[in-house]
Amino acid sequence: MYKKTVLAALTLLAMAWWAGTTPAETAAPFSEATQACLDCHVQATPGIVADWKKSAHAKTTLEAALGKEPLARRVSAKAAPPGTAKTAVGCAECHLSRGVQRPDSFQHDAFTVHTVVSPPDCARCHPVEEEQYRGNLMSHAWGNLVHNPLYMDLAKHVNGVQKLAAGGLQTADPDAATQAESCLYCHGTEIKVDGAVQRQTDFGEFSIPRLTGWPNHGVGRKNPDGSLGSCGACHSRHQFSIAMARSPYTCSECHKGPDVPAYKVYQVSKHGNIYYAMNKEWNLTAVPWTAGRDFTAPTCAACHVSLLVDGQGNTVAQRSHAMSDRIWWRLVGLIFSAPHPRSPDTSIIRNADGQPLPTTLDGKPAAGFLIDAAEQDRRKTRMTGVCRACHSTQWVDGQMARLENTIGASDAMVLAATELMQEAWRRGLATGPPGASPFDEYVERLWVEQWLFFANSTRFASAMVGADLGVFEQGRWDLAKRVRQLQDWMDLRRDAPPKAKPGP
Amino acid sequence: MYKKTVLAALTLLAMAWWAGTTPAETAAPFSEATQACLDCHVQATPGIVADWKKSAHAKTTLEAALGKEPLARRVSAKAAPPGTAKTAVGCAECHLSRGVQRPDSFQHDAFTVHTVVSPPDCARCHPVEEEQYRGNLMSHAWGNLVHNPLYMDLAKHVNGVQKLAAGGLQTADPDAATQAESCLYCHGTEIKVDGAVQRQTDFGEFSIPRLTGWPNHGVGRKNPDGSLGSCGACHSRHQFSIAMARSPYTCSECHKGPDVPAYKVYQVSKHGNIYYAMNKEWNLTAVPWTAGRDFTAPTCAACHVSLLVDGQGNTVAQRSHAMSDRIWWRLVGLIFSAPHPRSPDTSIIRNADGQPLPTTLDGKPAAGFLIDAAEQDRRKTRMTGVCRACHSTQWVDGQMARLENTIGASDAMVLAATELMQEAWRRGLATGPPGASPFDEYVERLWVEQWLFFANSTRFASAMVGADLGVFEQGRWDLAKRVRQLQDWMDLRRDAPPKAKPGP
Amino acid sequence: MYKKTVLAALTLLAMAWWAGTTPAETAAPFSEATQACLDCHVQATPGIVADWKKSAHAKTTLEAALGKEPLARRVSAKAAPPGTAKTAVGCAECHLSRGVQRPDSFQHDAFTVHTVVSPPDCARCHPVEEEQYRGNLMSHAWGNLVHNPLYMDLAKHVNGVQKLAAGGLQTADPDAATQAESCLYCHGTEIKVDGAVQRQTDFGEFSIPRLTGWPNHGVGRKNPDGSLGSCGACHSRHQFSIAMARSPYTCSECHKGPDVPAYKVYQVSKHGNIYYAMNKEWNLTAVPWTAGRDFTAPTCAACHVSLLVDGQGNTVAQRSHAMSDRIWWRLVGLIFSAPHPRSPDTSIIRNADGQPLPTTLDGKPAAGFLIDAAEQDRRKTRMTGVCRACHSTQWVDGQMARLENTIGASDAMVLAATELMQEAWRRGLATGPPGASPFDEYVERLWVEQWLFFANSTRFASAMVGADLGVFEQGRWDLAKRVRQLQDWMDLRRDAPPKAKPGP
Repeated sequence: MYKKTVLAALTLLAMAWWAGTTPAETAAPFSEATQACLDCHVQATPGIVADWKKSAHAKTTLEAALGKEPLARRVSAKAAPPGTAKTAVGCAECHLSRGVQRPDSFQHDAFTVHTVVSPPDCARCHPVEEEQYRGNLMSHAWGNLVHNPLYMDLAKHVNGVQKLAAGGLQTADPDAATQAESCLYCHGTEIKVDGAVQRQTDFGEFSIPRLTGWPNHGVGRKNPDGSLGSCGACHSRHQFSIAMARSPYTCSECHKGPDVPAYKVYQVSKHGNIYYAMNKEWNLTAVPWTAGRDFTAPTCAACHVSLLVDGQGNTVAQRSHAMSDRIWWRLVGLIFSAPHPRSPDTSIIRNADGQPLPTTLDGKPAAGFLIDAAEQDRRKTRMTGVCRACHSTQWVDGQMARLENTIGASDAMVLAATELMQEAWRRGLATGPPGASPFDEYVERLWVEQWLFFANSTRFASAMVGADLGVFEQGRWDLAKRVRQLQDWMDLRRDAPPKAKPGP
Repeated sequence: MYKKTVLAALTLLAMAWWAGTTPAETAAPFSEATQACLDCHVQATPGIVADWKKSAHAKTTLEAALGKEPLARRVSAKAAPPGTAKTAVGCAECHLSRGVQRPDSFQHDAFTVHTVVSPPDCARCHPVEEEQYRGNLMSHAWGNLVHNPLYMDLAKHVNGVQKLAAGGLQTADPDAATQAESCLYCHGTEIKVDGAVQRQTDFGEFSIPRLTGWPNHGVGRKNPDGSLGSCGACHSRHQFSIAMARSPYTCSECHKGPDVPAYKVYQVSKHGNIYYAMNKEWNLTAVPWTAGRDFTAPTCAACHVSLLVDGQGNTVAQRSHAMSDRIWWRLVGLIFSAPHPRSPDTSIIRNADGQPLPTTLDGKPAAGFLIDAAEQDRRKTRMTGVCRACHSTQWVDGQMARLENTIGASDAMVLAATELMQEAWRRGLATGPPGASPFDEYVERLWVEQWLFFANSTRFASAMVGADLGVFEQGRWDLAKRVRQLQDWMDLRRDAPPKAKPGP
Repeated sequence: MYKKTVLAALTLLAMAWWAGTTPAETAAPFSEATQACLDCHVQATPGIVADWKKSAHAKTTLEAALGKEPLARRVSAKAAPPGTAKTAVGCAECHLSRGVQRPDSFQHDAFTVHTVVSPPDCARCHPVEEEQYRGNLMSHAWGNLVHNPLYMDLAKHVNGVQKLAAGGLQTADPDAATQAESCLYCHGTEIKVDGAVQRQTDFGEFSIPRLTGWPNHGVGRKNPDGSLGSCGACHSRHQFSIAMARSPYTCSECHKGPDVPAYKVYQVSKHGNIYYAMNKEWNLTAVPWTAGRDFTAPTCAACHVSLLVDGQGNTVAQRSHAMSDRIWWRLVGLIFSAPHPRSPDTSIIRNADGQPLPTTLDGKPAAGFLIDAAEQDRRKTRMTGVCRACHSTQWVDGQMARLENTIGASDAMVLAATELMQEAWRRGLATGPPGASPFDEYVERLWVEQWLFFANSTRFASAMVGADLGVFEQGRWDLAKRVRQLQDWMDLRRDAPPKAKPGP
């Protein structure tokens, strides 16, 4: 008898230990359709299956997910769609076309399926998040780039192959494959169906739609069904771990380069310092997420996305997948800072000079397209509410005053460079708009880096409190040096005759 | 009976497991004053409270801390200050002004408190560390910058806003907010009281001193009470985790940028490689810290700060918060390498030409202000003692010989650039000292990067054995290219007439 | 009785818990010789001993290692060498010279030992890996550099100290200490014995061979016994953790800088994103290594080295220490991309113009020295087999098509820069080959970065799917800007008279 007791106790203890190291979900039965998928795919794509088996999707049912306390719920559907309540969320639950013939739907054994899972698929269980994300700048990242002729001109002069020809350097239009792994890797490609491929496999012959723009998981991907975005950009397939979505590494995939160095700022911030040193002791999967207890410094998600509570269960911040809900200035990607755009579709913006930019070249905002001061204030209040979970009001006010100051100072440094650039255009030392690209010549690229790299970096360093990126690591040092470099470049050409524009 | 035994055994086991994953501290009672703070602040600043509750401060008493074996002690006080022995170290223990009216003390409910905890507060339990730190260069980081006119001139030409005016580019003096998040973020601000703010809160109305230069946790912060430094720079509030202070991320907050890329070197060193791959299996909280057992490669703290022992309990290195105790050369931040300064106040240094620099522009050391060869040797012996815990003498000697060689070679590359710079000044291609800033023009900034970025990086890469930073990642490649670039810049202006200095 | 049972059960449980956190090896007895080493070295080099005690070497015997299932085996010897089967692999097992008098063997107490453990030492238990590695480019990294006069000319103009002399800048030949911590840190030094040093220690006086080129653990190190390579480059002493060899940090020690930014690409890839966020839940020590279960995204080792299986135990990829077995293009380190070399000794390669390069300056491959299309295809098939463990065929094909496109586009951008460089040489604006170095002048260094930094980075970003490094972080942005910068440099010197070559 006591042997049995000991054994039972040990088993219990082992289970408790196990429970402490894995998501506390019980097993869930698979639907027949999902089981049919698994029968072959456990061999055809074993890594995907094994990864998915670790997911909450594989271990819980929608019924169980819906039964949780409101603040603890990870699904926002009011009820389970017919026939989905009591099984795991498996291959079939996301990849079956379910009576809607999409452009990329195809017959695959007994099922009509589609490869490209799109936000409407996720919306069956997560409708609130899908709707919020539709209102988010990021879901329009593809169109905001390709429908803005000025940005496309920049993309051409980044990605187009150059050739030394008789009349000088010629820049070709960039090819689709290059664009797909360059700008559109993060912005998202347009995925279209272009006929079919026949595939011989161990399980028979299949005809599969040929997808162009594939693979891609960019945040603003244009899907074959016409929807925008890829939830998988942050909720990586096929484990869809909330711990991963909350980790700063996820955002760093697109927010690390010199044009948008948010992650680099985080790395040298006190927040980052605490995260890297201490996160192995944090609970990154708790819903809701308790500030100070589950985590002792914010990750990107904590400030910008997640539902946060305090130790008493009071809500610190609402969950939002319209990531700009807590952002009141647009600090990056453009020549000058400006209030956030009203519409997630920024390709509609025109400044006073008719250019598709939120400010003129001397910094005047295209106010009609941008949020007003009251909305800025609402968003700032949401963000500072997050700050105040761990910081005193005076701390937060001091920090915010510095940010406003830095926005002004960095814009002034861009203005100085832009005035020099305009002088170069005026004097014919370079050829710019109207009529010529402002992005192709060497000196123009020097000017571009002033705003696209150095001013962005300085503002991010201020906003997220990581000093290095605002000083010697592509910050103020470079802002100051670049103005002098442009001056030096012009001085040397003081008496040069105007030159014809080199190549296209 | 056996049921009870099993239960007891399981409880014991669970406790043992728990003890293995958290600091082995038992709960400690809170003082009445701390409890009064918590009553409101659990709601007012819940993240701080939750964070602090994870700290050793919250879980132990000074009496218990003082009762440990000497080598295991984390406090250096000889005895507990009156009335503090038997309670946790909470809000009140650090934030109460205790009869000393500081400039930032204020009446807060029943208590006189101060917001800015300063080294004298910490010294009540950690007096030895506070004293050591006072002798440390880092505690003087604020004054060493702002009282050195040459450095302030550099800071102006990094942080000052430039404007295109009639006579050319004008550089304004940098504003305080910019300085605070630029140079002074790490060096420390001067925090002063400037009147008071009234604050309406859920708990009533409060009058709180308005602090300028706040927030800040720079290593050389000048506190309202006149003391220097912020222990919180490395011992991050409010968990004050020793694991965090020992993690390289902590140092990286200020030692990562191109001017002082220690962390970047660590990242590509074998030491870093081992740390990143293996540290999840290390014991980062043990005191004393056993080389090879608790950790298998040093972090920054292991080489520069921590008390280290070997497996037999023999002391490998004494704890020191005068971080330069194991550093015999000053490798960064200045034009040439030099022996470490004697005094932590470097603003007193004058070279043979009267400049506030430890060497002349041709590299001659201001020997009277610098440690002598005997002291260099003592410090080197301390450091190599750490190395030899895991490396043979021949390994260490070979490594040290390379460092000395690289100090010479990198200084020679700076000399070549400096001679070119001086030629440019002589020929009037740029305007330098005396009479004009050596830091404002483009070509001068090219010269600055030679010593401030590339030579520093090369020497750090040698000292900490991370090759990349000494070769193609801002190391020798850039040192060599920059000399040629300066030559190229001069060649092009061979026949140029001397030009007037552009703007201030 | 029940007390004993409980005690036993608890012991069992503790062991199970312990087993879950450490390699599942039981203790192994030490050989007498190893015990003799330990008697002194536990005090002489305590860190090494403590580190080794954590190793599988210290915890297992060769007999036990040989007894495992073939796929689970970590040794490739068919049988244990005489007398080694039943003891741990300790100091003596690797450092005793065993009757072979090597140049660096020396008498040390009762034993003839050598400091530098070389691949033949490791081959006693791991002969297959040692043989594979001998066929690997990396094992020849030292000779491939020092026996290629063109590379050595580049190394001179990176590492040589420059001096401003009467006739202009003079570049000295780099000294051995600099080379050892610069290029040869990763490529490997040549270690030779140069007399002996006498050493007074706590354990008596010793005479120890003086080693030149020491310390070093470069991948192509030339050892005193004439063998090539250092297994310790990746299998770090003295824990030799397989988890560490599989971690991306290990490769980053040499593959992070701008010349070979593989690790930086990994950091911004989805694979890296998953690794950093999730690896604490992975099993990095399992042999064989199961895709999707033990790890959910590849590390460097997964794609390039490790034995991989799927959940059914089917082999996905064979283990290979000839790292290029799954690589069909050589993307870095050279002016243009080319098929991988046939021989690991690349110093034998000559292009059509007689230069020691795999292509001519206009990109024509030295086909006789490079693998043919059929071998390229075999290697590509091995790699895509790894991809397909987790990705669909269409995904993989799309990715591979992009890589081929990017190889062509990046080579075209190098060609444009090279044509400008050649024009500069032709017009006498710089002096190049034949007769003068192509690497010493400023403009030549601008050209070098085009292929050594930017084109490499762009191709790596494509191959490993980390967009940032192919766009604004030293990728296409820099490729495009640099071509225009070279043009700008030439334009300014349009009417300049040819100049004499500056210094050597």
